[in-house]
Amino acid sequence: MRNTARLLIACPDTRGIVAAVAGFIAEHGGNLLDADQHTDKDHGEFFMRAAIERPGFGLTPDTFASAWEPVARRFRMDWRIFWGEPVKRMAVVVSRQLHCLSDLLWRWRSGELDVDIPLIVSNHPDAAGLARDAGVPFECCPVSPQNKPAQEGRVLGLLADAKVDYVVLARYMQILSGDFIARYPNAIINIHHSFLPAFAGGSPYQQAYDRGVKMIGATSHYVTERLDAGPIIAQEAVPTSHRDTVEDLIRKGRDLERIVLARAVRLHIDDKILVSQNKTVVFD
Amino acid sequence: MRNTARLLIACPDTRGIVAAVAGFIAEHGGNLLDADQHTDKDHGEFFMRAAIERPGFGLTPDTFASAWEPVARRFRMDWRIFWGEPVKRMAVVVSRQLHCLSDLLWRWRSGELDVDIPLIVSNHPDAAGLARDAGVPFECCPVSPQNKPAQEGRVLGLLADAKVDYVVLARYMQILSGDFIARYPNAIINIHHSFLPAFAGGSPYQQAYDRGVKMIGATSHYVTERLDAGPIIAQEAVPTSHRDTVEDLIRKGRDLERIVLARAVRLHIDDKILVSQNKTVVFD
Amino acid sequence: MRNTARLLIACPDTRGIVAAVAGFIAEHGGNLLDADQHTDKDHGEFFMRAAIERPGFGLTPDTFASAWEPVARRFRMDWRIFWGEPVKRMAVVVSRQLHCLSDLLWRWRSGELDVDIPLIVSNHPDAAGLARDAGVPFECCPVSPQNKPAQEGRVLGLLADAKVDYVVLARYMQILSGDFIARYPNAIINIHHSFLPAFAGGSPYQQAYDRGVKMIGATSHYVTERLDAGPIIAQEAVPTSHRDTVEDLIRKGRDLERIVLARAVRLHIDDKILVSQNKTVVFD
Amino acid sequence: MRNTARLLIACPDTRGIVAAVAGFIAEHGGNLLDADQHTDKDHGEFFMRAAIERPGFGLTPDTFASAWEPVARRFRMDWRIFWGEPVKRMAVVVSRQLHCLSDLLWRWRSGELDVDIPLIVSNHPDAAGLARDAGVPFECCPVSPQNKPAQEGRVLGLLADAKVDYVVLARYMQILSGDFIARYPNAIINIHHSFLPAFAGGSPYQQAYDRGVKMIGATSHYVTERLDAGPIIAQEAVPTSHRDTVEDLIRKGRDLERIVLARAVRLHIDDKILVSQNKTVVFD
Repeated sequence: MRNTARLLIACPDTRGIVAAVAGFIAEHGGNLLDADQHTDKDHGEFFMRAAIERPGFGLTPDTFASAWEPVARRFRMDWRIFWGEPVKRMAVVVSRQLHCLSDLLWRWRSGELDVDIPLIVSNHPDAAGLARDAGVPFECCPVSPQNKPAQEGRVLGLLADAKVDYVVLARYMQILSGDFIARYPNAIINIHHSFLPAFAGGSPYQQAYDRGVKMIGATSHYVTERLDAGPIIAQEAVPTSHRDTVEDLIRKGRDLERIVLARAVRLHIDDKILVSQNKTVVFD
Repeated sequence: MRNTARLLIACPDTRGIVAAVAGFIAEHGGNLLDADQHTDKDHGEFFMRAAIERPGFGLTPDTFASAWEPVARRFRMDWRIFWGEPVKRMAVVVSRQLHCLSDLLWRWRSGELDVDIPLIVSNHPDAAGLARDAGVPFECCPVSPQNKPAQEGRVLGLLADAKVDYVVLARYMQILSGDFIARYPNAIINIHHSFLPAFAGGSPYQQAYDRGVKMIGATSHYVTERLDAGPIIAQEAVPTSHRDTVEDLIRKGRDLERIVLARAVRLHIDDKILVSQNKTVVFD
Repeated sequence: MRNTARLLIACPDTRGIVAAVAGFIAEHGGNLLDADQHTDKDHGEFFMRAAIERPGFGLTPDTFASAWEPVARRFRMDWRIFWGEPVKRMAVVVSRQLHCLSDLLWRWRSGELDVDIPLIVSNHPDAAGLARDAGVPFECCPVSPQNKPAQEGRVLGLLADAKVDYVVLARYMQILSGDFIARYPNAIINIHHSFLPAFAGGSPYQQAYDRGVKMIGATSHYVTERLDAGPIIAQEAVPTSHRDTVEDLIRKGRDLERIVLARAVRLHIDDKILVSQNKTVVFD
Repeated sequence: MRNTARLLIACPDTRGIVAAVAGFIAEHGGNLLDADQHTDKDHGEFFMRAAIERPGFGLTPDTFASAWEPVARRFRMDWRIFWGEPVKRMAVVVSRQLHCLSDLLWRWRSGELDVDIPLIVSNHPDAAGLARDAGVPFECCPVSPQNKPAQEGRVLGLLADAKVDYVVLARYMQILSGDFIARYPNAIINIHHSFLPAFAGGSPYQQAYDRGVKMIGATSHYVTERLDAGPIIAQEAVPTSHRDTVEDLIRKGRDLERIVLARAVRLHIDDKILVSQNKTVVFD
């Protein structure tokens, strides 16, 4: 994906958008590798993702915006473009459950996730070993009811210093403040260990056990101010039975969480997610 | 299953229960085809289902209880036995969505569900044709805010006259009163068109669409007084995407509902479900 | 979908195809509802499906070809267009297992499948009742080793008389001749009751049972001369266990077969399938 | 599971087996935690797994056999008992693909797999780092067409020295000789990266890609002399599409392989698998 530019567009739905976008790209010598679109008929909104092969494309990060502006203006587009390189910078924030972090690091080291990971942050020291093995700087920022705002400030400072583009909460058991979230709009990916909107909040496996459900799930979503209510990126579920204890649910859930979070991270890296009206359009 | 007796047991957990049950059956010449058990450690409760081949078994519906009583008393068992024949009598209650009814009737006519269906009831006339094609008596009992108690009384009368053992709500869009439910404890099977506890109540597909979930589900459960909160028997889920309209969710959901409801009915027919603490133990 | 024209394109991969297609449509006042494309890099082949809203589109079945020809010629396109109306004409061919036929008829009658079904053919009389209930002409064409070519000729005659566009083998347990298949290229949809390529040929559930697999599947595919080896349209699988007898696998498989076949039929109706190199591109 | 004894039984099917087994356990003060059974009607064979709480059970590894012998003889039982402690000793054998090894080690270190891992063997040096991080002895035994028997001898020697109870082939891309396999009957677990019996042999993802399947799978099985044809323990499958390259299938498959192999290992550790007639009975 490194030599692929990704152009993301949202605009009012009308005729001729695809023709205009594809025409513009062709005009500048670009090879359109992929072009997904979606129309939200409820809100009359049009979404598009165009993947353009960079070799041969006559525009660059420096020249694109001015060439593109007339098209964007004509269709009143909300748009962004990502150039594939440099790759995104991702921070991982965890508490004491490390299976998601471990999994992300493994995928990253084996080349499956094409990102930089300049920082791992935790409110506990447990992840230090994993971070060291992976050669990623680790910062422990303990949190308590007393120091919460200060701790968040410190974490935000670390994220800023590491110049991260987005943040993955790989089982971070703290609720972020609105101010924190506002700094990374649609750029904080959380994994919630339930099939949202069922079992939002704390101890979802215990809740699932108490309710006696026959499947459990996991949900990755962008974090918004409303707890566990942000735009859902990916979900998955597996069967359970009366034989499963809470511990069994936790164990089964770990596999779900790893897979669902990795899928969301991968989609985010490839710029395949657009957000609108608290929902995602996922061009996979 | 017709020549198989099913003995269902719930009692305080202790040593020697399986030995006592299996010993009793062997003593009376019974061949134990299947013996599932489960211990709920939270509540110290033991559950067992024993399937006994009737040919060769020295006990009958007339003689079983008195022979069995000493064992039952010793372990303070709550128990029931089903003899396979005559088969259960099932009523189906529907509103205007007929895919679940149609599916149940198909499975019944093709021999997949070994029950009698002496009655189909609806608050609308739409199901009359399906009932007639299947040769099942159909009763239309229209309901309105005004006549609700009277209508329920009429339905209960029809169920009693038809001597049904249990009731399947195959998309009946009415809330039953506590009195109605109390007449068929753990014997009213509902299909709810969501992955409960998510999207309880009305219009779950619309709710799912509005929330932007990436999977939808269906849930069959026994009906209790608390709406959509009874013991869950079976659940299933399928992926969805931003491309799915509410109509697409409804269409995908129909396939889920049919399969999940049929599974629950089948388990109920085979006496594979025990209920305790608002959860099911499903010996499948 | 009735007022939607679907343009299917396959051509050598090069730059500017999407721009040319979308430009052409925009030029003629067409609203592009959907435009999926795919590049098969192994063979340098490009595939596209464009869905065009008919209201407002300046071209008609009579005028499209001549206007479109220059674009098609420029990119050496293999193309077809479907206008949504009149709807496709589908024949269903069965033997004695009727669950797939019954399911297709139900979906059709409830409006889920927007087709005409002018003919049901079987080598056995069993489906006559279902056909009659649905108001579809039924023809019984018994087959024996002796009359096989003559029987195929008769079936082909019935299909021709009924002017069907495609044929669904909804569990037809006969092998069609090459001549028969050649009359409906990529227009005969079969359901095979296994997870192909595992268990091709006869008695796949018995084969699955004998092998002791832990999942069974179903596969819908276009029929080609090589038995059970045509382009796969859809597949699905469900878990099994050592407890499942062959009869259990057959029962579980029925649900799979119905769903997988219905999915394939639906994709075919909506012109969402392109075939190349014995594989399908499914724009879903 | 450490203070749980697991008694595995296979014998000709007859009446009274469960009563005799449960009676024997009760007689010796044992608490029967779980008792699964299965009858293979095709071969008239009965299988049972009894899990007995060790505290309170009057028999020990030293005294069990002589007390039990009369029961075993009466029913002509093939039986084994595992006492939970000491835990099993597992060797992992790999080639260059390390995702399964990494996953097993992670599960082991996090306490999910209650085994000892005294040895990792590979025909390549790549796994040395992972082994070292996990504190497990690693041996590199390169293999070539010339040294194959000698290499196998060396590996067998290492396994013997490490006193392993069973061997996990976590993507070992070599075919073992019949002599090797005979040393560990039903004690070598392989992960094959396809939905067996489809795509046995080499390059299954390439085969799946070439065939154009719409799902891929993974299969864990015990290794027997017939390549990829041993008793299947677990299988799982996920959807694919025409968009998936071979590399995408490999990536998706990695997640499947990890989960399916871990499930098989877990079942093996808990003595939940019986093998008969080249099939498994899995008491899960």
